[in-house]
Amino acid sequence: MKLPPFFEEDHRLVDAELERLLPAESCRPSLIHQAMRYSVFAGGKRVRPILCIESFRIFSNEIAAVLPVACALEFIHTYSLIHDDLPALDNDDLRRGQPTCHKRFGEAMAILAGDALLTLAFEALAGARVPPPERTALIQEIAAAAGTRDGMVGGQVADIEAEGKEVTPEMLEYIHRSKTAALIRASIVSGAIAGGASAQDQDRLCNFGGLIGWAFQVTDDILDVEESSTALGKTAGKDQAQQKATYPALFGLKKSHEFARELATQAMGALEAFGTRATNLRELGEFLVLRRA
Amino acid sequence: MKLPPFFEEDHRLVDAELERLLPAESCRPSLIHQAMRYSVFAGGKRVRPILCIESFRIFSNEIAAVLPVACALEFIHTYSLIHDDLPALDNDDLRRGQPTCHKRFGEAMAILAGDALLTLAFEALAGARVPPPERTALIQEIAAAAGTRDGMVGGQVADIEAEGKEVTPEMLEYIHRSKTAALIRASIVSGAIAGGASAQDQDRLCNFGGLIGWAFQVTDDILDVEESSTALGKTAGKDQAQQKATYPALFGLKKSHEFARELATQAMGALEAFGTRATNLRELGEFLVLRRA
Repeated sequence: MKLPPFFEEDHRLVDAELERLLPAESCRPSLIHQAMRYSVFAGGKRVRPILCIESFRIFSNEIAAVLPVACALEFIHTYSLIHDDLPALDNDDLRRGQPTCHKRFGEAMAILAGDALLTLAFEALAGARVPPPERTALIQEIAAAAGTRDGMVGGQVADIEAEGKEVTPEMLEYIHRSKTAALIRASIVSGAIAGGASAQDQDRLCNFGGLIGWAFQVTDDILDVEESSTALGKTAGKDQAQQKATYPALFGLKKSHEFARELATQAMGALEAFGTRATNLRELGEFLVLRRA
Repeated sequence: MKLPPFFEEDHRLVDAELERLLPAESCRPSLIHQAMRYSVFAGGKRVRPILCIESFRIFSNEIAAVLPVACALEFIHTYSLIHDDLPALDNDDLRRGQPTCHKRFGEAMAILAGDALLTLAFEALAGARVPPPERTALIQEIAAAAGTRDGMVGGQVADIEAEGKEVTPEMLEYIHRSKTAALIRASIVSGAIAGGASAQDQDRLCNFGGLIGWAFQVTDDILDVEESSTALGKTAGKDQAQQKATYPALFGLKKSHEFARELATQAMGALEAFGTRATNLRELGEFLVLRRA
């Protein structure tokens, strides 16, 4: 699937800002900065930062203000991958085609690099050139989405607890919406807050974000079944091996594809009021459910 | 050593606010909230929150505003202990006289509980009823102090790297000031910012905090040698067993005692301009270097 041009441009802006925000490898103590940079620059697609930027662009063109916010989301995403890959959690050796952080730097450094990225995320947010009331609002939004109450860590815990058990569709929805959709939604909402969106527009984008984030995770589960490890850059088929709760396991591949499509269609509906101002967000939404890896 | 009465009163205020900020054990997913509460309510002395509150009190009496800030510092401190105790790091079974978080809840849950407490800290900070400009300033202050550049995680990394090696006094100073003093200093400075302190008064308290935090860590090293595991509630003598870089190892006990005293005296000097308004902070400072466990 061909990516729209704005995607590549945003990707470049994000990478330059990540470079600016991350301490240099030479900065003492060097090893932790090496580990942080190793994982942040391992070839991620920058989905969350780009969603944040494109949501922001609906309301403002002062892109410099939103870049630290966009990067904070990537730091949080990266920390969650580093910790998920640890032996005590998913015990994965491969991520984006490279050895995982703990394989490369050892477990202690991987734990601390994750901690450091999460901390740096909030330092970046607190320093973003967004008016202070909006800045505190988006910090709350992002912290809640990364936390335990319907947030990323909560979804991760529920996911671990569900391993090897029969899960209900309701439980699966909870896991997906918390583990993945919450931070995707917060990426979009925080971009809107930074751009000065009205409460009503924030609600619309919150709705879009929750649905497209959910569709994104359903697609992820599908890819884990359909794609090779080479294409994914991580171990394929792990969900089934670990008896993870997934849509394909519960409903089969065909129904899972239909469901992802249905969620995406609903998500697009939430963007109607924005007309052509949301063209980029729509294209991003399409990409998230049509991607092959 | 007898604690002054305000200490106990602040302790109660902090515990009530921690109770309010932490999700209930029954809140889904229950296990992570059990783990978070287990470690937060394991009997900590609440040193950082009380320093924050007493620094705030120099400038304001509206204590409710600073309580979420005080609790955020305790969340960050607790997360650091949970992760430090993990098998990949210090591998400790005992903390405050109880099994460590991973001993009680398993490694996966301990890693996630630490992550969740760090995240909750920033959610609490973002929601504190402090004017937004001061709120963003104190979030930056605390995030930097918990991070890798002269902050807590950086000190932790340097500490690990120094194990079993000969360290210079300069390196030891870096470890102590980053690992422990940075967050102590941020506790005091963030209280001042929340209270509306002038830049000059913030500088004075920053100076006090850096010195007293350093003295606190030197005292900690001394106690690890002098006290029993029962008194400490954790394994005594671990520093030597792990060949950690400490003041007693480098200079002996007598010189270490003298050095802690000298730092405390210097710290008190930084409070002179506040007169009797800083009486409580002085008593806290004395406690931190005279405590026996």
